[in-house]
Amino acid sequence: MSKKLIGACVFGQSGGPTSVINASAYGVIKTALETPEITEVYGAAHGVAGILGDTLYDLSKEDPNELKLLMNTPSSALGSCRYKIKDEKDLERIHEIFMKYNIRYFFYNGGNDSMDTCLKVSNYFDKVGYECRVIGVPKTIDNDLEGTDHCPGYGSAAKYIATTIAEVYMDSIVYDTGTITIVEIMGRHAGWLTAASALAELSGAPPDFIYLPEIPFDMGYFLYNVESMYKARNNCLVAVSEGIRYPDGGFVSEAKTSTTDGFGHAQLGGLADTLSGVVKNKIGAKVRGIELSLLQRCGAHLASQTDIDEAFLAGKSAVECALSGESGKMVAFKRESINGAYHCGIVFQPLDISANKEKKIPREWITEIGTYVTKDFFDYALPLIQGENTRATENGLPRFATLKKIKA
Amino acid sequence: MSKKLIGACVFGQSGGPTSVINASAYGVIKTALETPEITEVYGAAHGVAGILGDTLYDLSKEDPNELKLLMNTPSSALGSCRYKIKDEKDLERIHEIFMKYNIRYFFYNGGNDSMDTCLKVSNYFDKVGYECRVIGVPKTIDNDLEGTDHCPGYGSAAKYIATTIAEVYMDSIVYDTGTITIVEIMGRHAGWLTAASALAELSGAPPDFIYLPEIPFDMGYFLYNVESMYKARNNCLVAVSEGIRYPDGGFVSEAKTSTTDGFGHAQLGGLADTLSGVVKNKIGAKVRGIELSLLQRCGAHLASQTDIDEAFLAGKSAVECALSGESGKMVAFKRESINGAYHCGIVFQPLDISANKEKKIPREWITEIGTYVTKDFFDYALPLIQGENTRATENGLPRFATLKKIKA
Repeated sequence: MSKKLIGACVFGQSGGPTSVINASAYGVIKTALETPEITEVYGAAHGVAGILGDTLYDLSKEDPNELKLLMNTPSSALGSCRYKIKDEKDLERIHEIFMKYNIRYFFYNGGNDSMDTCLKVSNYFDKVGYECRVIGVPKTIDNDLEGTDHCPGYGSAAKYIATTIAEVYMDSIVYDTGTITIVEIMGRHAGWLTAASALAELSGAPPDFIYLPEIPFDMGYFLYNVESMYKARNNCLVAVSEGIRYPDGGFVSEAKTSTTDGFGHAQLGGLADTLSGVVKNKIGAKVRGIELSLLQRCGAHLASQTDIDEAFLAGKSAVECALSGESGKMVAFKRESINGAYHCGIVFQPLDISANKEKKIPREWITEIGTYVTKDFFDYALPLIQGENTRATENGLPRFATLKKIKA
Repeated sequence: MSKKLIGACVFGQSGGPTSVINASAYGVIKTALETPEITEVYGAAHGVAGILGDTLYDLSKEDPNELKLLMNTPSSALGSCRYKIKDEKDLERIHEIFMKYNIRYFFYNGGNDSMDTCLKVSNYFDKVGYECRVIGVPKTIDNDLEGTDHCPGYGSAAKYIATTIAEVYMDSIVYDTGTITIVEIMGRHAGWLTAASALAELSGAPPDFIYLPEIPFDMGYFLYNVESMYKARNNCLVAVSEGIRYPDGGFVSEAKTSTTDGFGHAQLGGLADTLSGVVKNKIGAKVRGIELSLLQRCGAHLASQTDIDEAFLAGKSAVECALSGESGKMVAFKRESINGAYHCGIVFQPLDISANKEKKIPREWITEIGTYVTKDFFDYALPLIQGENTRATENGLPRFATLKKIKA
């Protein structure tokens, strides 16, 4: 049995928000508030930036009903950041703040970079002998973290994308004059989100071609495919990942890329317009480019209930893991089958399991010619988008959680 | 009492689709199928183009359960067109087809141009003495038709826009580094759709500024507003209509088109990118442009139940109006109050009531400085977005109507 550790906890959110990152927050906060040995439950404003800046909220002061609404509130309720631990001075400052509030539990919800933050903090505390249990909770709509079957956030984004593609398909075939529609979907390094467009097949409204970062992009073959389909059927719907690259590794969207995000990643976007221009020039058809943009990561009204429940479970499990004495771990999902039905199990992984790696779609889940996904992908993704959420509405509009954010 | 008219009916869909145009279709089809004096119920493939091309579907052959699913199937199930009656030869051809099938009822669902088609057909039949009752059913997400309180399709698009703006707002405020977000919304001549973004205020997540076609656009004032808000609050969310124009009448979106593509005529879209570029240059902030594109007109998963019910009612009322002996009319909505609650009444208007006119937002519903809407607009729009629809899903995805489309 593990030694009881009595002290406060702090929870933070980092990286790009998702539809369900606040469900993980609720999982952490609710469980922590119900745990006697956790004396205080703090929320960090804008993730680790709020810890460095000593801006912590006392979450015990929040209305429990508002906290519950976090289950269907998109984006990061506490604020997010893209701050990377720079040096030992940052770690010293975190230590100082943790000592000030007697923080003995640190739960951090984010992607790869956030797990790296957890690892650095955890290692530093080990080094200086400060007892604190550090657990990472993964999230990313991109679904590209190693060590977990899938990531909280992916199922909802996938459901949003599949539903939207199905609706756009219905719209795109409506005229007798024909249209080519190119939909740009997020996913810098892996095609999980773009592949989810194929699920629209179950609504009878699939894309004709899917272009994934896993397959080198050939403009000539792309144009050949689109033109052939357009000539055969008078319509063509294409789903394309923002992260597609030429065989030499250059992003197809690169011409438009000039700025970078806080982590030094190239900031993509505008690809749908670029490809639309090329297609219009070559084929001369009516072409419409659509970028799903932020909508695919904040469209909580269409969040998968499975994803919401699993995101909550991830947060809850992080607290339980820490209470059991673990530290320096990331909560992860393990796919299980109970009587043949999908079930999401919880495991704990080393924090660096996903460091500097991106989990890509297995090659065999993509058709041989590379422009669609196979049954394996459907089997993988379908369970994750199940369940219509029962979000709160008022006046026909979403009722989001409103936090008081009272400073500690 | 009107003379009984026994014969077939044809129904067609025209113009840009909406989330609920198929609910109107169901209203017409169901009512017509239940009416003894309507001997056959035909659907025209791609509107009047299908009549001219003699491509009619026998809708009595459809599975009633599939027809019912039209209530939640976006886009135009029978196909749409933008065909305008060219000359008397077109009208002669329509007459010929109507005689071939003994069509005595013509129901046409569309916008301004479709009402014009109805009028021409109706006048021609009067002239040649062919007895046929012609009733137009309005639809347009733009909500710019005169003679009706509002248009079927608007409530759902407004609900989609308000919900999406609320979600984007939540996402846009998440970083401590600040962002300016510019969301482009449809509406060529009137700002009804863009104004609906203000309803996100009821989710606590409104745009800071709204730019409508009703108010001449001043780039300097726009930049001043955005910069002031960004400096004060570190964030700024702007909703902008694709149809905004400079005081000289030129579309703001036009400049980009003429410089990059060299087209002579106005091609809308891409405005969010244009404005984002200007703002980035001037203010130097992180700017994101988002175009809601087709999603706002096909997002049936978020359709307003009020709008669905009213769209059905419009279709049903068209048939009832014709059966009562009327012809050459457009179904229209009249806002009524029953015990202080919103109620949608039905009236019948001349087909040309909206010809060559666009109903704009009254000036007094826009704030004096022109960058937001007043309580009058909220009172007008809120009832139209009420009610969460209970759409059919299968496998976590929309279950659309699948029609057999058996040719007559």
